[in-house]
Amino acid sequence: MKALRFRDSLKLVRDAPVPRREGEALVEVICAGICKTDLEIVKGYAGFKGTPGHEFVGRVVESPDPSLVGLRVVGEINAGCGHCELCLQGDPRHCAERTVLGIKGRDGAFAEFLSLPVRNLIGVPDSVSDDAAVFVEPLAAAFNILEQVSVKSSYEIAVVGDGKLAQLVVLIIAQIGCAPTVIGRHKEKLEIARGFGAHRVLLDTPALGREWAGRFEVVIEASGSPSGLATALAVVKPRGTVVLKSTHQGSTPLEMSQVVVNELAIVGSRCGRFRPALDLLVSGHLDLSPLISRRLPLEEGLRAFEEAAAPENMKVILQIG
Amino acid sequence: MKALRFRDSLKLVRDAPVPRREGEALVEVICAGICKTDLEIVKGYAGFKGTPGHEFVGRVVESPDPSLVGLRVVGEINAGCGHCELCLQGDPRHCAERTVLGIKGRDGAFAEFLSLPVRNLIGVPDSVSDDAAVFVEPLAAAFNILEQVSVKSSYEIAVVGDGKLAQLVVLIIAQIGCAPTVIGRHKEKLEIARGFGAHRVLLDTPALGREWAGRFEVVIEASGSPSGLATALAVVKPRGTVVLKSTHQGSTPLEMSQVVVNELAIVGSRCGRFRPALDLLVSGHLDLSPLISRRLPLEEGLRAFEEAAAPENMKVILQIG
Repeated sequence: MKALRFRDSLKLVRDAPVPRREGEALVEVICAGICKTDLEIVKGYAGFKGTPGHEFVGRVVESPDPSLVGLRVVGEINAGCGHCELCLQGDPRHCAERTVLGIKGRDGAFAEFLSLPVRNLIGVPDSVSDDAAVFVEPLAAAFNILEQVSVKSSYEIAVVGDGKLAQLVVLIIAQIGCAPTVIGRHKEKLEIARGFGAHRVLLDTPALGREWAGRFEVVIEASGSPSGLATALAVVKPRGTVVLKSTHQGSTPLEMSQVVVNELAIVGSRCGRFRPALDLLVSGHLDLSPLISRRLPLEEGLRAFEEAAAPENMKVILQIG
Repeated sequence: MKALRFRDSLKLVRDAPVPRREGEALVEVICAGICKTDLEIVKGYAGFKGTPGHEFVGRVVESPDPSLVGLRVVGEINAGCGHCELCLQGDPRHCAERTVLGIKGRDGAFAEFLSLPVRNLIGVPDSVSDDAAVFVEPLAAAFNILEQVSVKSSYEIAVVGDGKLAQLVVLIIAQIGCAPTVIGRHKEKLEIARGFGAHRVLLDTPALGREWAGRFEVVIEASGSPSGLATALAVVKPRGTVVLKSTHQGSTPLEMSQVVVNELAIVGSRCGRFRPALDLLVSGHLDLSPLISRRLPLEEGLRAFEEAAAPENMKVILQIG
């Protein structure tokens, strides 16, 4: 099959083996989204080698449960060992032995086929388009914030970043009745954020940290940039919470005394459950099309990665099946 | 009056003005403790200039409320503006206009006299010795952890550090029925920690992070060293909490992806309320004498700072009144 493979560099391979794993379903990928984590992976993040890609919609072609064959699905990306305490509770997201689709020990979605355990798959109702379904994974990641941090409608909430994930965070925060402020570096993207429910948009300038110092109870750092942490720490209130959504390689300098003196909480946030995200897509009549910048075939995967890395672009979708 | 004054260096001054502030009480200092923050201040931390010192017991000599004169007191160190929302709620710890005794905009306790608002002062019962009373401030700082983080007796809890503050944290954690593990670099200090309730003590070696990876629900970083954060992040469980108690100058490298992938919470923790700490000293029949390494007069303040900085030493007390 065709697949994008990363070892020292990203390459299009035409004869990659179809990834069949014992007891799992085989899914033919329809389309897949390139996310910031994928861009970090091809820079060496997480030491991953293989086929990246974890945002997808596909169709089941083989399954230990034959009733699934033909079903259009999305799939949760963490595959646990199945027998540790966490897995037995039905949540493999922190299973120590987990593999993660296209991120850790498991080939991902930038290929014609992928393999996932049946329990990871969720059928997609007809009312949800392929394009919308690709966003279930990042939308679930945005929802995850609400599982971790108490967010009250009286809070002043800021989102740092104006990229794809930041926009979905704005959408989720607005859905629960809050009116987030978005701090970004791209005027056009900030305008898109207004459409997703941003109450106020601010261009991230060197003066911003002073002008908006200590204003927000909760700040969600989803800029994908190491500098986003400093911006978030500058604008959060004493005793406030900074939620970190960005993963990138390497270390970021942290003024520990700022965290201690202001008694801040910094909370890392990764994957969410798919169900509430999919339910929102079913019920919400959301138009996510402003988040899609380009659509390219798998054969043009390398160019797709270049496009995805361009600051002016939002989601680039690989059309595969 | 005599005072230790810091500008570019720490000096003993014999003709410092007595610090009278309008509407406040004047306190004759009996004795004061040197803490890690003081050692950082004389390295330039927080940009403080003046008389450091914030752990003290003293006697009121002048007061707008004459009934206080003669009372032996300790004093909460944050003095708020008195009219902002936080101050009106009775908690000036995060008042934006606050001064902080010996740390921010207000001369401190390494002097014959200090000034504090009457509302900051708490009378010390006769059953609490001067030496014990000096520990009310850091003990309150340790108690503050329990105000911020939910600690269950079923949790595995680690304290990183074996210095003065770390020992008090061990004491507080043990008081609530938990059996903390203490990770430190000094064998003798780790033995003292056993006396304060440590269930297990571990020498912090390069292998420790691997051997004890992901073992603790809550890790309290009270080492006073920038490297303590990395140790804490190595041993905390996924979805666990790292409490930061150490303040030091400059920045510490943080692997943000570690925080995000493991969904850790990093919580800064500073000053606590004095009442529960003082109540514990009244009721607990605690022997804090293992924490006192040296006692020196104010005149030998510079030597006292040197002694306090020596890794083998615990609390150095300045005997002033």
